[in-house]
Amino acid sequence: MPSPHFSPPPLAPLTLVLGGARSGKSAYAERLLQDHPRRLYLATAEAGDDEMAERIRHHQARRGAGWETVEAPLDLCGQLGTQARPDRPLLVDCLTLWLSNLLLAERAVDAEIDRLIDALPGLAGPVVFVANEVGFGIVPDNALARAFRDHAGRLNQRVAGCCQRVVLVAAGLPLLLKDPS
Amino acid sequence: MPSPHFSPPPLAPLTLVLGGARSGKSAYAERLLQDHPRRLYLATAEAGDDEMAERIRHHQARRGAGWETVEAPLDLCGQLGTQARPDRPLLVDCLTLWLSNLLLAERAVDAEIDRLIDALPGLAGPVVFVANEVGFGIVPDNALARAFRDHAGRLNQRVAGCCQRVVLVAAGLPLLLKDPS
Amino acid sequence: MPSPHFSPPPLAPLTLVLGGARSGKSAYAERLLQDHPRRLYLATAEAGDDEMAERIRHHQARRGAGWETVEAPLDLCGQLGTQARPDRPLLVDCLTLWLSNLLLAERAVDAEIDRLIDALPGLAGPVVFVANEVGFGIVPDNALARAFRDHAGRLNQRVAGCCQRVVLVAAGLPLLLKDPS
Repeated sequence: MPSPHFSPPPLAPLTLVLGGARSGKSAYAERLLQDHPRRLYLATAEAGDDEMAERIRHHQARRGAGWETVEAPLDLCGQLGTQARPDRPLLVDCLTLWLSNLLLAERAVDAEIDRLIDALPGLAGPVVFVANEVGFGIVPDNALARAFRDHAGRLNQRVAGCCQRVVLVAAGLPLLLKDPS
Repeated sequence: MPSPHFSPPPLAPLTLVLGGARSGKSAYAERLLQDHPRRLYLATAEAGDDEMAERIRHHQARRGAGWETVEAPLDLCGQLGTQARPDRPLLVDCLTLWLSNLLLAERAVDAEIDRLIDALPGLAGPVVFVANEVGFGIVPDNALARAFRDHAGRLNQRVAGCCQRVVLVAAGLPLLLKDPS
Repeated sequence: MPSPHFSPPPLAPLTLVLGGARSGKSAYAERLLQDHPRRLYLATAEAGDDEMAERIRHHQARRGAGWETVEAPLDLCGQLGTQARPDRPLLVDCLTLWLSNLLLAERAVDAEIDRLIDALPGLAGPVVFVANEVGFGIVPDNALARAFRDHAGRLNQRVAGCCQRVVLVAAGLPLLLKDPS
């Protein structure tokens, strides 16, 4: 539900948009970039099943034209280095899915996260990251879900520490957690 | 734990009070209406089992006298149209349970939500909606829970878009997400 | 990730730091006390299994030296009364684990919580409580998890009502819910 009257603040070099499932975090993040004639969408989603394929279609339809799209289900760090440019802000949607992809592919998750954190301060252009907040429920029954929750929470903390602006989105509305001004 | 010193702000035409389970969101919403001599409680809960019956008793005891109560487990839109009056604010507790009732009764959920959203701007009196935020945990294992979470999140976003004031309640305390002033 | 530039506000008599799993709530709470030459850590965790033992080691390593530690898995109220002193702030980490310990030990949970709430206003020194927010996910399948969520949410509300400062931490960053000023 992007409003035509929404006037986004100037982009910080690095922004993190946190939110729950169906919180409107992606739509909010897209609006931050909507006035930039050139903008690139770094998609971490892969259409592995029908449910995910439907989500990807839903997101594409909402974004509409005006976005270049590059897929980066695993090599997010490489793509960030290659694609970030001062004249073209990037939207990374989302870090939590990237983490999930790394775990499924049995990559060295901690090393990949270190690589991301090391790369952030040197990126050549503005980047908006979207991530899920997943730690506000009951402790999950199974150990894998607990480990995922731990990884996701620590990733969010570390990325938030590198970003100049961090917002938490609920019901489509932002709560400011950190602000450059 | 309503405080005798709590002085609620003037009611907006439409208010959404979001919160987690046992966050104090209902008590907070009730306090918004406490100074109105006439106030109506639109209850979406049905005492289907002992646990729910106990919750209903607990809520009734806390609200105390001074509330007229109408049950609207399914026909929320009809009751809103009939009951809303300028001199009598309504409290709808809660939208998430209404959604759950619609799904259990196999109603056309999207059509009912559209009907609600269409009705909101034309209501004749102030309404406070309570809803659960359910999207800040780990992705649920089963597809039904995921679908419910998606419906609830989208419903919250759409209702929040129509409301002049939106608050998120945690530990009984409000965070302002949207304000009319 | 404590920042050397973080300058914590003066301690309120009673502070509650709420947050999700891996939200950075403990690290945030520790920073509130970091400038006090004497500070005591009231630990509610017990190393019952390898996962918990690892968590305890992780927390100890981060806190570093400068903390005295007392274990209070069950008798939190007794330890608070004994240990609280004007010249030595306490960090209680965390209330949610204490609740869990009480339930596992089949103690009278409601009576213990009443005892805690009654004791709070009379404590002789500043205390910072850490607690989990666990109510922002989907309703858990099993009744025990629902009951735990209810207890935890009500405990958080009651403690928040007694504290002068309450913050909600997400991704290591605080949202102010209640402030003494």
